[in-house]
Amino acid sequence: MSSSIGIVSPKTMHFAEPLQLQSGAQLRDYMLMYETYGTLNADKSNAVLVCHALNASHHVAGVYADQPNNVGWWDNMVGPGKPLDTNKFFVIGINNPGSCFGSTGPMHTNPATGKPYGAAFPVVTVEDWVNAQARLADNLGITQFAAVMGGSLGGMQALAWSIMYPDRLRHCLVIASTPKLSTQNIAFNDVARQAILTDPDYHGGDFYEHGVVPKNGLKVARMIGHITYLSDDSMGEKFGRKLRDAEENGGAYKFGFGVDFEIESYLRYQGDKFSSYFDANTYLLITKALDYFDPARNHGGDLAKALAGTKAEFFLASFTTDWRFSPERSREIVDALIANRRQVTYAEIDAPHGHDAFLLEDARYMNMVRAYYDRVWKGI
Amino acid sequence: MSSSIGIVSPKTMHFAEPLQLQSGAQLRDYMLMYETYGTLNADKSNAVLVCHALNASHHVAGVYADQPNNVGWWDNMVGPGKPLDTNKFFVIGINNPGSCFGSTGPMHTNPATGKPYGAAFPVVTVEDWVNAQARLADNLGITQFAAVMGGSLGGMQALAWSIMYPDRLRHCLVIASTPKLSTQNIAFNDVARQAILTDPDYHGGDFYEHGVVPKNGLKVARMIGHITYLSDDSMGEKFGRKLRDAEENGGAYKFGFGVDFEIESYLRYQGDKFSSYFDANTYLLITKALDYFDPARNHGGDLAKALAGTKAEFFLASFTTDWRFSPERSREIVDALIANRRQVTYAEIDAPHGHDAFLLEDARYMNMVRAYYDRVWKGI
Repeated sequence: MSSSIGIVSPKTMHFAEPLQLQSGAQLRDYMLMYETYGTLNADKSNAVLVCHALNASHHVAGVYADQPNNVGWWDNMVGPGKPLDTNKFFVIGINNPGSCFGSTGPMHTNPATGKPYGAAFPVVTVEDWVNAQARLADNLGITQFAAVMGGSLGGMQALAWSIMYPDRLRHCLVIASTPKLSTQNIAFNDVARQAILTDPDYHGGDFYEHGVVPKNGLKVARMIGHITYLSDDSMGEKFGRKLRDAEENGGAYKFGFGVDFEIESYLRYQGDKFSSYFDANTYLLITKALDYFDPARNHGGDLAKALAGTKAEFFLASFTTDWRFSPERSREIVDALIANRRQVTYAEIDAPHGHDAFLLEDARYMNMVRAYYDRVWKGI
Repeated sequence: MSSSIGIVSPKTMHFAEPLQLQSGAQLRDYMLMYETYGTLNADKSNAVLVCHALNASHHVAGVYADQPNNVGWWDNMVGPGKPLDTNKFFVIGINNPGSCFGSTGPMHTNPATGKPYGAAFPVVTVEDWVNAQARLADNLGITQFAAVMGGSLGGMQALAWSIMYPDRLRHCLVIASTPKLSTQNIAFNDVARQAILTDPDYHGGDFYEHGVVPKNGLKVARMIGHITYLSDDSMGEKFGRKLRDAEENGGAYKFGFGVDFEIESYLRYQGDKFSSYFDANTYLLITKALDYFDPARNHGGDLAKALAGTKAEFFLASFTTDWRFSPERSREIVDALIANRRQVTYAEIDAPHGHDAFLLEDARYMNMVRAYYDRVWKGI
């Protein structure tokens, strides 16, 4: 995979003033990692913020000089001539606090104790992240974004921006997202959490001091998550009931608990890989942020009321085979926006890849986003 | 909950001759637990075999004298005046080998070593179970069942009976089942297995000797399974996003990793309860039997060919919100039977409860089964 934007460099920004969190706790003396692509224009009107989802970071596009294969997670979307065109826009990716990709997180030193935060890292919410992002924007002198954009959990952040800071974004792009998790979504998250919390190597969150990592719990958590990112059909088409070592075994089952089917091999590999780099406390924190997001909650469950103060124009997209955040969930947002007479563009993309489709190349999807950014650009 | 059949007693049958298994292994010197309800008629033509699914046993109906609350798992279906009427039929429930409810299983003594089988218990398949059931029928003098019936994994056994012993059943009732697991079904099973296999208390399957049980792994496995048994909608209706201690906390989130939502409390409770009585090796074995079932496999994937030798009449039922084994999966069986010009009755029941619906009271469902058994009865 190559990147058309080429080599990029992450930056850091330190915050001395504590970040007040929704839980009542504060995050003291923290640092955010971010990257920028393109050039901020003179009146600072062409900035676009891209918010990341569970397993991603500030590294949205490009590669690092010393890691030529480490391509940003939305490189197909962001770059020169891409749907979000860095020849026009100044794009910012920020790693959220609590993450394990550079911004202050559970593996960093707790200034109160001098030891890694571990379980003491405060629970953070989507709204907390948005506040942290707003401060970074303040320091960059950006008072209003041309657009805030995200997919999945990133879409929740974009939506929260439109509610919390209605004057600070002109456009809001919410992709493959939902106004709140369903009961089933929460249930899957909690099983993943239980897998981590009950792994003896978790050590109540303070595994750093024990020199171990709850790899088994993280592996199971990731395997569960991965199943929910893929559609039943695309899994079926890719793996079916194919056996892993069919030739060697003459097509016979192995009658043991090792790998029989290709899908087992694939998921275990994905789980192992994930557990080798992702932080267990971060996984817990991020699933909690997902569970807690529910902007209608303080409005008697009325999403239209929650969105009444928004001023942005909206772009929403969903994918037909996404059973994690189905098109129905995006339509709830669309309906609530229309009830408020907001400008909404909505695309329901017929794609086979389930929730993961928002990260994949799909001409219709990419063209819709490109056309929308053409409009954003005309307003600058 | 009361039972109209009243007090029942389990029976045991010992088998000195080894059971040849599909894997090539043999099960030596084994024992099966079973129960019977109703009276076998003089020409032994009114026997009905009920096959159990994952978390069930020979205890299909009634209660035990010393356990008045231990009601059989299909008591709403089987009993005097029930859809499967024990005033007419002689009903048999058999616990399959490998189970943890009485028949020879991984926790029993391996005659080869004098120690518990543990990981040495052979992998058993749906077809192995059917062979074991056929031997028990032999010993009871039942050469032909009026019907063989089962739901989910039990339905796979009923279907296998129709293929393996076409002359030994006149009717085959396959409910909420599938001709083979989908990739996603296998994936969920494998995550559950990984949770158990990586629990340090599993001890490679020989945890009995260590005086521990891999409770955490079993808990996670059960939580995953449980989610797939319920429909997204019924979970949503029952639990929604309700908070567990909403009143005490003034409706606030707890900002920790304990129980916030009712669904978390429910699933953790179900997981804990399950891990207190279910055997981890049995869980592994049963998920493998599910994964391996695929009668079309030896016929180039052609289910119609696999069912070509069947002679029974069939009843199939599926439930609209069952996303584990959706109606589409039942229709595959129906289509393959029709291609063979078999007699088929098929009911697609509009029920909100997901896969679990096959165990629940639903008037239309119960009436369909009752009407079918009226027909079975007329043929006796």
